[in-house]
Parts: sequence; structure tokens; C-alpha cells
Amino acid sequence: MYHVDLNSDLGESFGNYTIGMDDKVIPLITSANVACGYHASDPVVMAKTIACAKEAGIRVGAHPGFPDLMGFGRRNMNVSPAEAKAYVLYQLGALDAFCRVNNMTLQHVKPHGALYNMAAKDYKLSTAICEAIAEYDKNLIVLALSGGELARAASDMGLRTALEVFADRAYEEDGSLVDRRKEGAMITDEELAIARVVRMVKEKKITAITGKDIEIQADSICVHGDGAKALAFVEKIRKALTAEGVEICSLDEIVPR
Amino acid sequence: MYHVDLNSDLGESFGNYTIGMDDKVIPLITSANVACGYHASDPVVMAKTIACAKEAGIRVGAHPGFPDLMGFGRRNMNVSPAEAKAYVLYQLGALDAFCRVNNMTLQHVKPHGALYNMAAKDYKLSTAICEAIAEYDKNLIVLALSGGELARAASDMGLRTALEVFADRAYEEDGSLVDRRKEGAMITDEELAIARVVRMVKEKKITAITGKDIEIQADSICVHGDGAKALAFVEKIRKALTAEGVEICSLDEIVPR
Amino acid sequence: MYHVDLNSDLGESFGNYTIGMDDKVIPLITSANVACGYHASDPVVMAKTIACAKEAGIRVGAHPGFPDLMGFGRRNMNVSPAEAKAYVLYQLGALDAFCRVNNMTLQHVKPHGALYNMAAKDYKLSTAICEAIAEYDKNLIVLALSGGELARAASDMGLRTALEVFADRAYEEDGSLVDRRKEGAMITDEELAIARVVRMVKEKKITAITGKDIEIQADSICVHGDGAKALAFVEKIRKALTAEGVEICSLDEIVPR
Amino acid sequence: MYHVDLNSDLGESFGNYTIGMDDKVIPLITSANVACGYHASDPVVMAKTIACAKEAGIRVGAHPGFPDLMGFGRRNMNVSPAEAKAYVLYQLGALDAFCRVNNMTLQHVKPHGALYNMAAKDYKLSTAICEAIAEYDKNLIVLALSGGELARAASDMGLRTALEVFADRAYEEDGSLVDRRKEGAMITDEELAIARVVRMVKEKKITAITGKDIEIQADSICVHGDGAKALAFVEKIRKALTAEGVEICSLDEIVPR
Repeated sequence: MYHVDLNSDLGESFGNYTIGMDDKVIPLITSANVACGYHASDPVVMAKTIACAKEAGIRVGAHPGFPDLMGFGRRNMNVSPAEAKAYVLYQLGALDAFCRVNNMTLQHVKPHGALYNMAAKDYKLSTAICEAIAEYDKNLIVLALSGGELARAASDMGLRTALEVFADRAYEEDGSLVDRRKEGAMITDEELAIARVVRMVKEKKITAITGKDIEIQADSICVHGDGAKALAFVEKIRKALTAEGVEICSLDEIVPR
Repeated sequence: MYHVDLNSDLGESFGNYTIGMDDKVIPLITSANVACGYHASDPVVMAKTIACAKEAGIRVGAHPGFPDLMGFGRRNMNVSPAEAKAYVLYQLGALDAFCRVNNMTLQHVKPHGALYNMAAKDYKLSTAICEAIAEYDKNLIVLALSGGELARAASDMGLRTALEVFADRAYEEDGSLVDRRKEGAMITDEELAIARVVRMVKEKKITAITGKDIEIQADSICVHGDGAKALAFVEKIRKALTAEGVEICSLDEIVPR
Repeated sequence: MYHVDLNSDLGESFGNYTIGMDDKVIPLITSANVACGYHASDPVVMAKTIACAKEAGIRVGAHPGFPDLMGFGRRNMNVSPAEAKAYVLYQLGALDAFCRVNNMTLQHVKPHGALYNMAAKDYKLSTAICEAIAEYDKNLIVLALSGGELARAASDMGLRTALEVFADRAYEEDGSLVDRRKEGAMITDEELAIARVVRMVKEKKITAITGKDIEIQADSICVHGDGAKALAFVEKIRKALTAEGVEICSLDEIVPR
Repeated sequence: MYHVDLNSDLGESFGNYTIGMDDKVIPLITSANVACGYHASDPVVMAKTIACAKEAGIRVGAHPGFPDLMGFGRRNMNVSPAEAKAYVLYQLGALDAFCRVNNMTLQHVKPHGALYNMAAKDYKLSTAICEAIAEYDKNLIVLALSGGELARAASDMGLRTALEVFADRAYEEDGSLVDRRKEGAMITDEELAIARVVRMVKEKKITAITGKDIEIQADSICVHGDGAKALAFVEKIRKALTAEGVEICSLDEIVPR
């Protein structure tokens, strides 16, 4: 039987600022990537987010980012590996405190935004991130771009690794995401996007932007809850996967210990 | 036999900014209050501070403060109890991550600066702080001003509570600290200060600013490592206590479980 | 003839976070209080906000707040007068830079949130704020709570002072706002609120919560643009004032030099 | 006759954190680059720094940096040109407010740290920075790395441009600084460093790391005040320049309007 996890970024509100439709997307996903106060969120938001996730029965992971609230963690910062390691550890611990008081176990770690993108291309940075995770808790799952350096570093370090794919993005032949600025980078046809997702999960294949079929592993699909359209799309993906006999379950049930 | 702990604030450097003489004061104390990145410190400093404390064999506690780096957490902020609870929990977890990867157990929590001062006078705020601590780990010791509201709230909640005294401060008859702006608030005569400390530890008594003797409990003495003079004073206190038959040991050895 | 200004807080978005319906409220007001990057906003938002205000032909003022983004500047902070003065000056200059490159002249300064509330009750703090304003530009108008300490300090310092009233708030007999937590603090009946506003402008009188009529000066009415209902209410106020022969114009046209 | 300016970074303290020996270096320099609250400094420090500079009779410039206090503005951040422009404008205005209340005129702008280094290699980023400066005040001098892209952009935009050289750094044949990580990047021999400075000022030449003489323009020499040794070195440079008939004066006297 086929299995896949649906993950989404959650708890990105901050102080007086609300972002995302967390209560709407929570029932649709199996794993939430929860912001930890660096690129987004604050302790009050984190407390609320973890409580909501617990009530809904979904699993949560840390979503550490760069200390760049003004840029929402989306701007590359050339931090040193030692800095990256310490930043991830700090955010991991901070979020885990809210899990702990809610009797929840942290399931995974997925770097956010620019940290995610930089790690996907930088083995040294990825190793620093994975060291923080491994030293903190060897059972944590690293949720990483399928085919990227973070996945490789996590695997090399013996960490449980889950590979993530994107429904709305085109892929290069080497399995990397097509740069958003390139023509055809985004898959805008919803039916096509869903068909691609189903194929990635069931056949472990995807047609690259060049037209060539490549192999890909899809443990989790990244979905968004930032608008009515995005939510409707997630529902369609869920429906299609279920109709195709794919069970939607959390990373912890998919990735072997 | 008599016992007392010596505690000091540590790890208050930030980024490119260095403050305090941590390496000099560490060998003189038994418990370190480690800043957690809100009023001071950052993850890199925290990693270094915990590693140093471990190497020196001293115990560490969290020193959570207000999110006011510009004011070093020394300015009162009227945060709500829910905010205070979430802020303490966040900082506790963040610091604990560094303890965990160093195989150290967090020993205590001592609020910093304005949070400490406000809590000492506000039972509701203190309760919020203690809830965060109790929910996180029931074995954590709350290090609080002797005679203040935080001590009362911690005790009411069944938390292990350690009472702190100050060598260089005068006391009111009700056991509270004399406001720094009042004449005679600071004990500047070192010999007198040391004699007062010894008496607090051995006799559980102190002469209030009014001249009247009051009862006081001294589980820990707050000392400073921010200059050569402060360090010399700590050495004198240690010497005097030892000469008087007082054993200097960590809070964990003093406060019953 | 009667005149009154309508002011609203603007440009409170931050980074990836959007707040308020600035484009909708701009056509309805004559003076905008623009956030300066401490309690809200960032340089990119400020650039955009000033450009929009210019295009709409409304006047702008600085809306300095406490350095508390997480609390949106709504939490009291006991900063020193010297700190308050420096914070106001910093934010004033920062915002003025965007005015300058848009060939706009800064019209006024209105402290935000907790700084506004604290200043209204603290003459010393108000004096520090006014010193920053006076030293920066003697032509700036201080927009202050009618009857509060900031208005008094500004007036004592010879600064141009505009007095602000609230449509939706009840007043105490001494002219101060009734604490939001008290019964009857908010005027929820829109017709009543509008009638009160018209009377404040034309008769310079308001019925206090005790039932007694008191004198009040209304140079400006504070309105909100954070929702469809709020916007509709502003339109009603505008209509009622116009129907009553009150001209709605900017502070600069109302407050003598 | 020969002229050169000596510039140094100033006012980099923050809150409770003190850095640099500003009072010692101020008498030795002619132009101060004053931090503006993003990578370092705060409004209270800025107020004090500008007052000290005024008392000493030296000229001041803005030293805008990335919004990265934790990294002291030394880490590359891939901000957009629009963001860079807004950040520079914000910091320019903020600092200028303190100049204005002290009746001082802002003399120049020198980007800090990573912003300086990135601008030196990125014409587009440099153009954004220069747009902020030009729109704010056409008389401001851009202090830029001799031979870098910021100097080129400033010059192309018709801005007054001052070229900066470093006493302690080796140069590549193309006039760029040798990467610090390369062997021989730092000139550690003080006598040699001083001889090189004198030659750059008087002959407009420097021997590149390859051994080849290249042309270089030195309007200002960057010096440091962060330690006793650094200060002694500045004194030596001053003495040598004076002995060689070079007048040390501010940028404003050197760069034509």
C-alpha cells in the first residue's frame, strides 16, 4: 500500500499580526511545521499553535529559520555552520517546551525559507543543521527537499529522513526545483499538479521540465493554507490520493526508526 | 552543618558584544543563571556558556527576561500573565536544548531584572511564571527573592523553592529590599556585608534598615562577576563562609525534592 | 465656521505581515499617523505609506512607539525620559526621511499606544517627548489627548498643540478617558457616538459618564480603518459633520502657528 | 599640497553593551561613521555619539548596515535593491535627526560591514544605496572602497564620492582588497603599512600583492579605535602623514561640491 504525509507551515502569526488560516488547514494535514520565533511567531502564538495541533491530533515539527523577522526568513544570510547549528538548537528547544507541556512529542524538523533553500544546496550547512538535530534527539525526522543536500547530510548522519515534494513546482533533471524565475517553474494547472503528485507517490517518478522522466521519492507533500484557493487545492489533493489508494498518514508512520 | 549556594548571572554577551568576566566568576560560584536570548545572549553565546559551565562542574539555571534587548530586560513591561508564562516557557526550552546536548540537567529558574523585580511584588505574575516552570519540569528549583511573591507562589504550587539574599543590599523590616534610590540601600562596607551574609546563613537573621532584627532565609547568595572588584569580593565571601563552617554547594544539594 | 481634522493610524504592516486597510481609510481622513518601525512598520512599508499619503493629498505625522514589536507598542515600559526623548527623535527622523524624498512636510507627531497612554498621565515623560519634537522642528504639531499631560507639556513648551477626541469612548468628569475595563467605557451606539462628536466640535462640550456636561476641545477625531465596519463608521462621521456645517481639514489648517 | 581624511566607525555600543574606545579615537580622526541602530547602536547611544563628535569638532556620517544586530551587520543578506534603498534612507534620517538637534550637518554615508562589501561588488545594490542618498541630500558624500562598484555608482549618479583605502590590507591588481582568508591579505608590518599609506596619498600608487604597482586614489584612510594597539597605530599614521606634508582634514574639505 502507498503512504504519504501532507505537511504545511503553521503558526506564523506574530504579536498583533495574523497570517495564514491555521484552523482551516490543520484538519487537512498530517504534519505541521511550526515557526519558532526567529523568522515568525512568538511564544504566545507557539503556545496556541501547539495546543491547536494537539486538539486536532496532528503531529508537529520545528520550522527553524534565520533571525530575520523583517524578511520572514526568506533572505539568504551567510551565517557560519556554528551559528546555524546554534540557531536550530535554540529554536528546537524553544518549540519543544510547548510540546512538552502539552504532552506532545516533536516529530520532525524542517528548516524554513532561505535556510531550507540554502541547506538544500550546501552540504556543510546541512551537516551543521543535522548535528543540532541529532544531538538534541536522534528520533527526530529531518524533512528535506527530495534530492537535496540536507537529505543527503541527514541520511549520512543516520538520521530519520523524509523527502518532500511540491505539487506546484517543476523539477530539473537532477531532481532540484526549477528556479521560480524561470519560465514554467510553477505548475499552474491543478489537474496536472495533482496527477504529478499521485505519480510521484505511486510510481516514484516525475517528468522533469526537460520532458525526461526522473526518479523521485515523495514521503511528504508540502501544501499551503494561506487562502481559500490553496485550501481547496489541498482538499483536491487529499481526495485524489485517497481515490488512488494512497493512505495519508504522518511522517512518523512512514519513516522507519 | 550550614550550607549555602552562590549564584551569579552568566552568559550575557550578545553577538559582537562581550559583557561580564564569565571565565573568572565560574570557578567561584555553584549555580549560574544563564541568559536565554531575550534580554541578553544569543544561541552561540548560550552554546559556549553551557559548555563552560559543564567543564567547570557548576550547575546551571535559566535566567529568562523580558523581550527587551535594548533595555537589557531592566525596564518594567506590563505583559499579561499569559505572555509572561509563554515567554518563560520559550526561554526555558531554548536554554534546556543546550543543556541537553551537553548532557546537563537544568537545575533552576531565576527571572531576570525587571521580571524578577515585578514578580517579587506580583503574586499573579509569579503564578504565571511558576506555571511555566511546573508544567515544564516539576523538579526545577525556583530561585526567588527571600520574602517575595515569587517565592510564595512557587511554594504554594509545590515547586522546589530556593531563597536568595543579597550581600550588598539593605532590607526593609518586611524582608523586602530597600529601594536602590533610598539612602542606605547599598551596603558599601565589605566587612559589614560579609558579616551580614554569614549571619543570614547561620542565624537566619538580618538587621533591617530600621535597626530591627528580622528573620530571613538564605539558600543562595547572589554575587557578581562584572569586574575585578566584584570578583575579589566573591572570593572574600567564599573565604569567610568557609572559615565559618558553611559549606558552599549547589541549590540542588540544598533544596529538598 | 467649524473645523475638525480626522486622524487615523496608518502604515502598521511589517515585513510579510499586512494589517489595516490603509488604501480604504486614506480617502476618508485628513491626517495620518504613520508608524516608524519600532512598534510596527519597516522601511519598505514606510516608503510605500508615505507615497500613498502623498498621492492622496493627505498630511502625515510621525507615530512613534515603544521598541516592542512583539507587543505592538501597547505595553507600558518604564523607559527613562532620556530614552523616550531619544526614541522619539530617532523615529521622527527616520519617518521624515521618507517625507523628504517625497517632498512632503511632516505635519505632526502623535505617540502610539502605551507611549500615548503613559504620556497622557505623566508630565515628565511628556516633556521628554516634547523636547525631542521641539528640538527637531518647532513647527510640528503635537497631537495629544484632550485634557492630558502631553497636551499640557506641549502647550507649556510653546509647541503647536492639537487636541484629540474619541467618538467611541466615554469620558470622566476630569476629561480623561474612562478606563476600557469599566462598564460604559465604550460608546457602542453609533448615532449617539456621532451626535457626541458633533457636539464636541461645535459646542466644545461632552456629557461625562457621570452625566455631567464638561468642556472639551476637539481639534481632531481619532478614527480607525481596520475593518469594513470601522470604515463605514468613518463615512457616517464625515457625512454628519459636513451636514452640520463642519469643515474637515488637516491639523495644519486648524492649529495656529 | 596633499590632503587626506581619517575615518573610523563610531557609536557601535548598544543598550547595556559597550564597544570601542570612542572617546580615545575621536581626537585622532576627521570623519566618524556613526552606526544607526540596525547592525549596532540605539537612539541613546546615537544621541551621545553625535554630541561627542560635535564637541570634538569632527564631521559625522551615517554608517547604515543590515538589520542584523546579532551578526553585527557582518553577514551577507540578499535583500532586494528596494529594501536596501529603504533601509539606508531609514537609517540616514534617524541619524540625521540627532545631527539636526545638535546643529550639525551630516557629511557622508558609508555602508557598514556586509552591506559595504556587497555594494563594492554589486552595481545594482550600489545604485539603490546611492538613490537613497541622492534623494535625501545631494550634498552628501559617499565614502566608498577605492575601485569598487559603490564608488562607480555614486560617481555615475553625480554624487560627491570619496575613495577609501586601508592601511592594513593588501590589494589585488584590479584594486580590490585581497580576501582576508588569503595568505598575505593583511599588512602586519606597521612601518610597511604606514609607508604604503603615505605612498597612496602622495603618489596615488600601491604595490599589489602580485608585486605590480597599481594606481589608487586615497581620499580617506579607514582606521580603528577598538584597542590600545589600534589607537597607537592611528597616532603613528597621523605623525607620518604630517611629517610628509600631508594635511589631515575632513572629507568635506577634500571632495569638491
